[in-house]
Amino acid sequence: MSERKLIAIEDPADPRIAEFSQIRERDLTGRAGGFIAEGTVVLRMLAAAHGAGLGIRAEKLLLLRNRVEGVADLLAAFPEDVPVYVAETPVLDAIAGFHLHRGVLALGRRDGGGSVDALVGALPQEALVLVGCGISNHDNIGALFRNAAGFGADAVLLDETCCDPLYRKALRVSVGSVLTMPYAREGSSEALLGRLAAAGFAIWALSPGGEVEIGEIAPEGRMALVMGTEGEGLPQAILTRFHTARIAQMPGLDSLNVGTASGIALYAMAKAMGRLPG
Amino acid sequence: MSERKLIAIEDPADPRIAEFSQIRERDLTGRAGGFIAEGTVVLRMLAAAHGAGLGIRAEKLLLLRNRVEGVADLLAAFPEDVPVYVAETPVLDAIAGFHLHRGVLALGRRDGGGSVDALVGALPQEALVLVGCGISNHDNIGALFRNAAGFGADAVLLDETCCDPLYRKALRVSVGSVLTMPYAREGSSEALLGRLAAAGFAIWALSPGGEVEIGEIAPEGRMALVMGTEGEGLPQAILTRFHTARIAQMPGLDSLNVGTASGIALYAMAKAMGRLPG
Repeated sequence: MSERKLIAIEDPADPRIAEFSQIRERDLTGRAGGFIAEGTVVLRMLAAAHGAGLGIRAEKLLLLRNRVEGVADLLAAFPEDVPVYVAETPVLDAIAGFHLHRGVLALGRRDGGGSVDALVGALPQEALVLVGCGISNHDNIGALFRNAAGFGADAVLLDETCCDPLYRKALRVSVGSVLTMPYAREGSSEALLGRLAAAGFAIWALSPGGEVEIGEIAPEGRMALVMGTEGEGLPQAILTRFHTARIAQMPGLDSLNVGTASGIALYAMAKAMGRLPG
Repeated sequence: MSERKLIAIEDPADPRIAEFSQIRERDLTGRAGGFIAEGTVVLRMLAAAHGAGLGIRAEKLLLLRNRVEGVADLLAAFPEDVPVYVAETPVLDAIAGFHLHRGVLALGRRDGGGSVDALVGALPQEALVLVGCGISNHDNIGALFRNAAGFGADAVLLDETCCDPLYRKALRVSVGSVLTMPYAREGSSEALLGRLAAAGFAIWALSPGGEVEIGEIAPEGRMALVMGTEGEGLPQAILTRFHTARIAQMPGLDSLNVGTASGIALYAMAKAMGRLPG
């Protein structure tokens, strides 16, 4: 393995690493297409996704100097033309605007991102998709992707009111699954579910008052599980128009966390569809 | 309903609300038995737990002035001898040390807390308990309690290396379930599981390489599900000594989040034991 070329950054205002500056503020205002990956787990997924035809590419890395030795194999997973910048702790903290415990960052980009239409059109005849409506919490979006990957869903579809899954925290909570799971975020939930219904998907909206217990659903070839927000749940129009499913639980309590609920629903459905190894 | 007496706080250094000062720093250093509950959901659980024989009591409330009207029914749920302090935003922020969006806080106390021995001794002949070993993440501890409550577990047992479930964030993530779910946190995982085994519990340790898929376990009268940390999982000594269970999932990925895994395991087991409403 050849020695990786490292570019030392000594000025926090160096324009070559400008995309990493004031990370938290930029999380909120957006990055015009770029996203920040942090930590070795997510960077490993980024390296795997880069050039794999998923529209994801790594643009540059920024590491704490004292992390370089420990992540040599990770660096080797990125092509030589992806620059690797290194900085000492005070410089890196000044760039980021707070103390970065992990000290392993990358700037990535997702091209296009694909429309719901194109994504649904490319799904196989036997398919399981997870749909999120109005999920604005980054942890919950990340959990949806982690669970979708864990139980082998073919895609995640998000309506336009969901937050961006490439947001730094969502990406981290997903353990990088956002980078490898096909997904689209576009349009209203009605339009999105209408498109799935037209493509022959059986649509099951999760709700504490759902008509069928999740373990009792007879699977069809193409299944869509729909998750709403924790507080208000899914809009009544969706619950009226499509099948509804509940997860059996004790009465009288706050419903489950949406991440956990998606895990249980995906587990039950993927198992019923015979998609999981025993 | 009589008008609730409110005590105005104008000095952030007022000793009557000293327990609320610099909340985050005190989260880390401890509060000598007291805990901070925040938000209306958790305060409702605190009001319900207060005086219900669970060893939980509310000591004082601290509210943002402009939240008082909206939470009048919540205030009425606390006995008259629990003082209610109110402050304007600048004063409350100065007390807490950061901006509190929710503006609804309480100081609570848990007496004794009960030993593992006393708790196990009091469990019914048909019982389901959740055991946490080495769970140091506050979100994950909160998720264990939320799921234990959601699926009707009889108790949560934590080894001494788990973090305190009364920590502010854990309590919030649990949606207050920590206040109503019987639990003990004490001793080593070996001692804890030994005590359960002696009490006739079938002990199933969750592990990605577990011998039996969680849905295939034949339930017995007393069942214990054991969760380890996400990174390292449970110690080999536990996996060797007790039954092991896996959750069917796609191979080659990071395992599930421990909160989600506990939800799936509890759901599957509570259902198999016939403990959930259809």
